[in-house]
Amino acid sequence: MTPPEPAETRTTSPTAGRSPQTATLAEIAREAGVSAPTVSKVLNGRADVAPATRARVEDLLRAHGYRRRRAEASRSPLIDLVFHELESAWAMEVIRGVENVARDAGLSVVLSESAGRLTPGRTWADQVAARRPYGVVLVLSGLDESQRALLGSRSIPFVVMDPAGDPGADVPSIGATNWQGGLAATRHLVELGHRRIGAISGPSRMMCSRARVDGYRAALETAGLPVDPELIMAGDFHHETGYRQGLELLRRPDRPTAVFAGNDLQALGLYEAARELGLRIPEDLSVVGFDDLPVARWVGPPLTTVRQPLTEMAEAAAKLVLDLGREGGSPAATRVELATSLVVRSSTARYDGPVTSTT
Amino acid sequence: MTPPEPAETRTTSPTAGRSPQTATLAEIAREAGVSAPTVSKVLNGRADVAPATRARVEDLLRAHGYRRRRAEASRSPLIDLVFHELESAWAMEVIRGVENVARDAGLSVVLSESAGRLTPGRTWADQVAARRPYGVVLVLSGLDESQRALLGSRSIPFVVMDPAGDPGADVPSIGATNWQGGLAATRHLVELGHRRIGAISGPSRMMCSRARVDGYRAALETAGLPVDPELIMAGDFHHETGYRQGLELLRRPDRPTAVFAGNDLQALGLYEAARELGLRIPEDLSVVGFDDLPVARWVGPPLTTVRQPLTEMAEAAAKLVLDLGREGGSPAATRVELATSLVVRSSTARYDGPVTSTT
Repeated sequence: MTPPEPAETRTTSPTAGRSPQTATLAEIAREAGVSAPTVSKVLNGRADVAPATRARVEDLLRAHGYRRRRAEASRSPLIDLVFHELESAWAMEVIRGVENVARDAGLSVVLSESAGRLTPGRTWADQVAARRPYGVVLVLSGLDESQRALLGSRSIPFVVMDPAGDPGADVPSIGATNWQGGLAATRHLVELGHRRIGAISGPSRMMCSRARVDGYRAALETAGLPVDPELIMAGDFHHETGYRQGLELLRRPDRPTAVFAGNDLQALGLYEAARELGLRIPEDLSVVGFDDLPVARWVGPPLTTVRQPLTEMAEAAAKLVLDLGREGGSPAATRVELATSLVVRSSTARYDGPVTSTT
Repeated sequence: MTPPEPAETRTTSPTAGRSPQTATLAEIAREAGVSAPTVSKVLNGRADVAPATRARVEDLLRAHGYRRRRAEASRSPLIDLVFHELESAWAMEVIRGVENVARDAGLSVVLSESAGRLTPGRTWADQVAARRPYGVVLVLSGLDESQRALLGSRSIPFVVMDPAGDPGADVPSIGATNWQGGLAATRHLVELGHRRIGAISGPSRMMCSRARVDGYRAALETAGLPVDPELIMAGDFHHETGYRQGLELLRRPDRPTAVFAGNDLQALGLYEAARELGLRIPEDLSVVGFDDLPVARWVGPPLTTVRQPLTEMAEAAAKLVLDLGREGGSPAATRVELATSLVVRSSTARYDGPVTSTT
């Protein structure tokens, strides 16, 4: 494909705090001491530009806040979808959502993994710039300053789904009401009569994980129950950790009668720990998960959990990124949280044992 | 990007049964009554060619068995991965395998879904031709004649993973030893003393599914046990069907004491049916799955199953497609089945009840 070079436009730098600057491609070329086609090559991610030249051009593009016109012709019919890691079982739900929107729009989905780093590598940003997708959806990942500048200068919009860190107030994002979910899960356990309620968190660097545990705390506090830090275990959203931290919680002499497991995979690890210790769910231990993966319905007993509408969130993120990429498009809301909801199944039951703490 | 037009080569049609024909791009242009750049545009999937012209050129490309030279410069750093459907829980294992190989090769993965059809739509093939990936990995899908011709003329190789139908002897494919797996699963149950052993199949149009059930039959026959067609239920590899067909099997007065569930999801559906009927696994019912998804370890009781090395199969398929795309590359084997293996966990137990049939 040889897309026509989009017409130049003078643009204003959107970066707050800097004075607005404008430059055309030709002006940037002059300032860099190269030809305009060379600047074009850099913008198009072509390999046949000397690294030093390329760096100089990139710096100028960034300094001038240059933004390429969003000419349809210059884009490939692709959406980039980037995962923090593909290990997680819920990645499939997200892929399906983005795939739904892409298919309707006649686009294909490019999948990549930032492989455990929270921002994808520099090479990745170069590849994205070269393939010029309609937009980028990042799952539990962010972009660093230079990656944002790189995509910005090519007018490739991006949206973060379920932000892991604090993406900054100007980053478009789609999340879920994690705090409300942690609150609803724990209130459900309190209403069943539980007083010693444990929690297994996700990684503390992820905001969604902090929000869930804060919701747990708020439920206890508003019910007048003490928050015992010893009952809050550090997790990482993996099955194995639910099992290990579950064993530790359940082996205490004053073990909790119920646990908010942080997510479904940790809940399944906790199931395994309970089985190993001969504790029955829900007779001896109530468990609440978070996510509502398909597997939550399939395990024995079916898991009470907080439904996070992952596929809908992914659809919303993909639609938002397409809206952002539309010439003149200005979506109504660029930071949205979709509602979570408690799904009561069979892993939670009334607790009528000795009440160790009341108000 | 404006990749240089690859040099022309006279090629011989690889299609058996036709006389070898050769043509250059210029000859095809002359025969079609168009310019050579127009033929180039068709090959590059450009939109600015009249549909009738395009069809005429495609017909000639196919008739002459034209194959574009595999010039590195003409390809995008992408691998296409096409699923029959993204519903299946094991899609994630496959994605991970292709992603591993792609990352090592500096390529990105484009994901698409043939949405329940066993060959992806025509539009899909056009999109692939336009984006010119290094190769295409199809999961449980095939390509029709015209799609094969379209990819062939662009020298875009493809590999089918775990063929659903009969892909034809000349189609490169990576599978698993499904028949051996069905045999091992059923022999395990026979060795535990089970005599009435049910089976839930996958869809009969999928060869992998037929092979598993044939392995089941072979295990019974070689043990001198009768094959009762009433105990073989038609499934479709989904949880819901395992549940429904499981209920039907388990409600019989002469219900089987063990079931080979066809895959893990159907095994989990069968778990649910057993729970509903108050049957304990493995005390009252032994269950064997197929696939060894992560969830097989997490359910209660952990599932005995046949491990299919999905991630390794996907890696092998991606490596094979890259080998096929290499100039002058001729991989040693283009039709490979990786070994399955029985993983014994806690869902199967010895049966010491009344023996209803022996030799």
